[in-house]
Amino acid sequence: MTSKERAKALVSQMTLPEKLSQLTNEAAAIERLGIPEYNWWNEALHGFARSGVATVFPQAIGMAASFDTKLMREVADAISTEARAKYNEYKKFGRTKIYQGLTCWSPNINIFRDPRWGRGHETYGEDPYLTSEMGVAFVKGMQYGFEEHPKYRKVDATLKHFAAHSGPEKGRHSFDSVVSKKDLHETYLAAFKYIIEKARPAAVMGAYNRVNGEPACGSKTLLQDILYGEWAFDGYVVSDCGAICDIDSFHKVTSNRAESAALAVNNGCYMNCGSAFKFLKVAVAEGMVSEETVTKAVEKLFEARFDLGLFDETEYDSIPYSKVNCAEHRALALEMSRNATVLLKNNGILPFGKDDGIKNIAVIGPNADATTVLVGNYNGTLSEYTTPLFGIRDMARKYGKDVRYAIGCHHTSDAGNDGNIEEAVIAAKYADAVVLCLGLTPQLEGEEGDAYNSDLGGDKPGLSLPKVQLDLFEMMKSVGKPIIVVNISGSAIDLRFADENAAAVIQSFYPGQDGGKALAEIMFGEVEPTAKLPVTFYASDEQLPDYSDYSLKGRTYRYMTEKPLYPFGYGLGYNKYAVSDIRCDGTVTSSGATVSCDIENLGKMPGGNVVQVYISHKNKPDAPICQLIAFKKISLAAGEKKTVEFDIPVDRFMLYDSDGELILEDGEATLYIGTCSPVKEEFCAKTDITIKA
Amino acid sequence: MTSKERAKALVSQMTLPEKLSQLTNEAAAIERLGIPEYNWWNEALHGFARSGVATVFPQAIGMAASFDTKLMREVADAISTEARAKYNEYKKFGRTKIYQGLTCWSPNINIFRDPRWGRGHETYGEDPYLTSEMGVAFVKGMQYGFEEHPKYRKVDATLKHFAAHSGPEKGRHSFDSVVSKKDLHETYLAAFKYIIEKARPAAVMGAYNRVNGEPACGSKTLLQDILYGEWAFDGYVVSDCGAICDIDSFHKVTSNRAESAALAVNNGCYMNCGSAFKFLKVAVAEGMVSEETVTKAVEKLFEARFDLGLFDETEYDSIPYSKVNCAEHRALALEMSRNATVLLKNNGILPFGKDDGIKNIAVIGPNADATTVLVGNYNGTLSEYTTPLFGIRDMARKYGKDVRYAIGCHHTSDAGNDGNIEEAVIAAKYADAVVLCLGLTPQLEGEEGDAYNSDLGGDKPGLSLPKVQLDLFEMMKSVGKPIIVVNISGSAIDLRFADENAAAVIQSFYPGQDGGKALAEIMFGEVEPTAKLPVTFYASDEQLPDYSDYSLKGRTYRYMTEKPLYPFGYGLGYNKYAVSDIRCDGTVTSSGATVSCDIENLGKMPGGNVVQVYISHKNKPDAPICQLIAFKKISLAAGEKKTVEFDIPVDRFMLYDSDGELILEDGEATLYIGTCSPVKEEFCAKTDITIKA
Repeated sequence: MTSKERAKALVSQMTLPEKLSQLTNEAAAIERLGIPEYNWWNEALHGFARSGVATVFPQAIGMAASFDTKLMREVADAISTEARAKYNEYKKFGRTKIYQGLTCWSPNINIFRDPRWGRGHETYGEDPYLTSEMGVAFVKGMQYGFEEHPKYRKVDATLKHFAAHSGPEKGRHSFDSVVSKKDLHETYLAAFKYIIEKARPAAVMGAYNRVNGEPACGSKTLLQDILYGEWAFDGYVVSDCGAICDIDSFHKVTSNRAESAALAVNNGCYMNCGSAFKFLKVAVAEGMVSEETVTKAVEKLFEARFDLGLFDETEYDSIPYSKVNCAEHRALALEMSRNATVLLKNNGILPFGKDDGIKNIAVIGPNADATTVLVGNYNGTLSEYTTPLFGIRDMARKYGKDVRYAIGCHHTSDAGNDGNIEEAVIAAKYADAVVLCLGLTPQLEGEEGDAYNSDLGGDKPGLSLPKVQLDLFEMMKSVGKPIIVVNISGSAIDLRFADENAAAVIQSFYPGQDGGKALAEIMFGEVEPTAKLPVTFYASDEQLPDYSDYSLKGRTYRYMTEKPLYPFGYGLGYNKYAVSDIRCDGTVTSSGATVSCDIENLGKMPGGNVVQVYISHKNKPDAPICQLIAFKKISLAAGEKKTVEFDIPVDRFMLYDSDGELILEDGEATLYIGTCSPVKEEFCAKTDITIKA
Repeated sequence: MTSKERAKALVSQMTLPEKLSQLTNEAAAIERLGIPEYNWWNEALHGFARSGVATVFPQAIGMAASFDTKLMREVADAISTEARAKYNEYKKFGRTKIYQGLTCWSPNINIFRDPRWGRGHETYGEDPYLTSEMGVAFVKGMQYGFEEHPKYRKVDATLKHFAAHSGPEKGRHSFDSVVSKKDLHETYLAAFKYIIEKARPAAVMGAYNRVNGEPACGSKTLLQDILYGEWAFDGYVVSDCGAICDIDSFHKVTSNRAESAALAVNNGCYMNCGSAFKFLKVAVAEGMVSEETVTKAVEKLFEARFDLGLFDETEYDSIPYSKVNCAEHRALALEMSRNATVLLKNNGILPFGKDDGIKNIAVIGPNADATTVLVGNYNGTLSEYTTPLFGIRDMARKYGKDVRYAIGCHHTSDAGNDGNIEEAVIAAKYADAVVLCLGLTPQLEGEEGDAYNSDLGGDKPGLSLPKVQLDLFEMMKSVGKPIIVVNISGSAIDLRFADENAAAVIQSFYPGQDGGKALAEIMFGEVEPTAKLPVTFYASDEQLPDYSDYSLKGRTYRYMTEKPLYPFGYGLGYNKYAVSDIRCDGTVTSSGATVSCDIENLGKMPGGNVVQVYISHKNKPDAPICQLIAFKKISLAAGEKKTVEFDIPVDRFMLYDSDGELILEDGEATLYIGTCSPVKEEFCAKTDITIKA
């Protein structure tokens, strides 16, 4: 029997109350049918989360910076292995509670529309295509590892938050995202569609907000018409936690809880994280929901449980607990961290070396020895980890250098900072170089209620670092030693102060358990930095449109007309790389195109780069200024040259019209191929093409 | 000219307002006299504190557990070296702010009268004699290093809090310590007197509370009669911070601030931490304070500044900044930490070894990876440090063992602990031994306002660990693996649960920067534990008298009639030791006595012990049941035997009468000599003596 058939058979034996007991995340046991208690709520953004010790990989935004889909799939495979290893033990307690199951509410594939959004670091950045590919890799790694099981999913991945969800955090329970059809399909839905098609995620999570007036968790347009309809999604939809209550409490679209529950389930939101579905009893009794709909919902959910093998013995049962944070996974987290750390500026001071005249390094700043920035949010518990201070000191000793630490200031407060700043000045004075670890924390930018140090319900007020950190930078500058700024944050920061005054600038996105070690390896040249920005680093707050405006106008590299500080796709290495010999048909038709080029490592150390292909349509005023359509992470030995080939399907040459339809139009376009987005033309070669419908 | 003469000459040039500007901790600059701004407030209990990175030695209570006066003096020497190294840099900014000077408000030699007192961990424990000797070592190390400078003090040490100050923290600003003359002199003042006589501390700090009705900072009895009078103290008295305001605001002994300031300065409290002395202007104008008194106060303070060489060039000016947390001091902190860790029970499971059949160790508990417990309170900033988890894991790998970590529970809260406890159960199940790191934090026990997680203004409600930790222990016990309980706290805990059920019990008193490394060295037998409890570990809350009662009746090993769980002076090693061949004159006269014995290490590893001498007077119903009168820390190679000799002056054979007078009386007594207090008779040999007045 298929899982569908088994689910149907099992559910047919249930009474209505039994069925209703299965539709919230705290699904009850039905002992007479051999069904144990199961809590559907699990988190796994960048490591199995909130369930004790687990390998803590870099935060999602950092993994996106790797542009490395293979590595991403390895990470997701490791996460799901740890989830299984834990589940195998937890289930021996007779039931699995919150954070102990296999239905993971990850990845977060919302578009990081605005850098002020607190939860942006949970995402893969601002680009629909990068998000799509990273999401596919993540979902496949989670659900299938590297080899799909003929019968069972390893865990369930859940695409969230469907849809058009990217702040403001404050007021998210009543917010209405007003989005044009074009923006909706081109930007906010594109990755959902792509990943569902390519990776078949088990679930989708509805968002808190409304979209054009309809509450996302009860939206006929989003759920019935688009998700289940156009896209033929075959999984289940889960509500964000408490979101169904919001429909009457805050959106005020329904007049009571039973109506909210009915709206959700009738539109295909089958699993309620929260308690609203307790009102389905009333809703059924009053005829707002048919028992058939309830049955269909329960069947869908049991289909998933059968797909996971929760009622069978499977090969996954033998994954041992020793896999949790095992040496192999720790090494993988370190490797991802190396690939997630972006070098934004370097006047040549990096990498440090044995004979560079730098004997004493001052490591300064509120993020130098902070563990909270290693883990980001939705994280596991650290067991073995390296802060920047520990990583740099260990490495410095290896190279015969000394490190002196001073905190310099606290993240935001002036209180008690006076002595700290003086200590930092002294440390800088006795140093030959200053590594200044600034930035934010997941308590300053994150989810409503969780990022308790944010004054804006989790969001950032703007792009600037807290003033106390800028003051610290000025004091350090006044000492006169070269400064390497390491900014640790989950989002774009206005780094002009660093770009203009520092010898080097590194961006680390909540880098995971051994983030400090990866950072040190990069600073000392044991590893070449290869990561690229998955978001635009705007030059200032003035470049940002109104925060609550969901129009893409002026947002992200795709629609921004001003010059950013650091563009999407940007990131330096230590070697120089040459992209040459672009080969592509001058005319693209419905069969898509093959594009290739050579890339050569002109430097003296092994390294790598991300070859990126962008398209810029001519005379299409509504089209993105440019759009990433292909990329590949390449490793290259010193002096090595490789040919990179991209088979690009036709839809990436197509454009969305004002109805949100993707169409192939005749026209001219330029392809940019290089190691950054075309904002930095010096990193790109280009070629013109003709598109024929 | 002497410092006294220089001070007199300098102060004679000051106007009255200038003089008055010198009497609060924020002493103003007097530019026309070449006097820079100076803030008198500095902290150095167990490392130069609140002034950025400094070597963080074990908390005072842990250093007391070493019973090692030589090591204590080394630590204090290192602390004052770091203070000087920092001062030498800070002064280049043209003034020294709070926590940047040389006048250190340490040590805290209050008697740890009751284990519920939050600040008890700042002290050297419950015994006046141990406190005296550790205090002498600390003050000498701070002020003179190992060789007294002919002209200058290295830093100023300040004995605090004078007097009879040991909680309650809540209400300390209005509390009246009601103390009999006998208890006052025998217990609460004894260490002050001894240290002033033996080590000449520069300063004494007055307490917040009243003593028998008189506010300590304005007490004629304490300051005029006893301190400056009987004891001929030649230094300065500083108020606790804000304590002079308390005199009118909370004690209500005076009717306004000017009267409070007058009361304090007229009784010899010359330095005001706080702002009350701003009212001295009024007090002088109204005739409550004479200008002569003001002059005397200012002279005393400038005498100290001259003694510190603040207006001269001294050898101390060349102490380089590189001394701060240098390798030598880090090694010293580790060494003190080894000597501060007490083994309370061991069924033979410790030390772990290569072939002990223990392959997997579960390290569990809220203190396993906590950094806050490394530092205690009044601490410097950590730069290089080892938590128990990191220490044990590093060591385990060396011995071919694996470590798995689970937090198990948070310190006090049940919130979100369910999954934690299950993870801990799983970790224990797969382990051969469980190291359970329980205890408190300096946020749960500490100073009013500072220990913000205490519900009692910094104090503990009782001796029990928070229930959630006891529940965790029960869960661990149910798994059935041997448990090593590591309790990290600054005070005595009711450890019956551990004593009855654990294979081994270790007490760590906020162990300093490398506390986890020292712990691991001890657990793996690289170092023998030699520390002894400086406080009684009572068996239960029922053994404690009323908290606010300052009578010694029933308190501490000296007056306790019930059997404690672990007595003062107790602590196990891995070797067995034999104390034998006690030699002492049977009759003690006014010349005191010489007592000696042999101690032999009967074991197979190098180690050591603390030989302790106690006296128990016969037929003296008011005398302490027994009293420590001498001790010596001895290191012994495997099989080594040493003779230990004590020259014990006569006053240690004397008794306090009801007027607080120390008198030599005819009588009989028993001397107990061994490696614990005589509560554990099996660790002691004894001999009877006769005392002849």
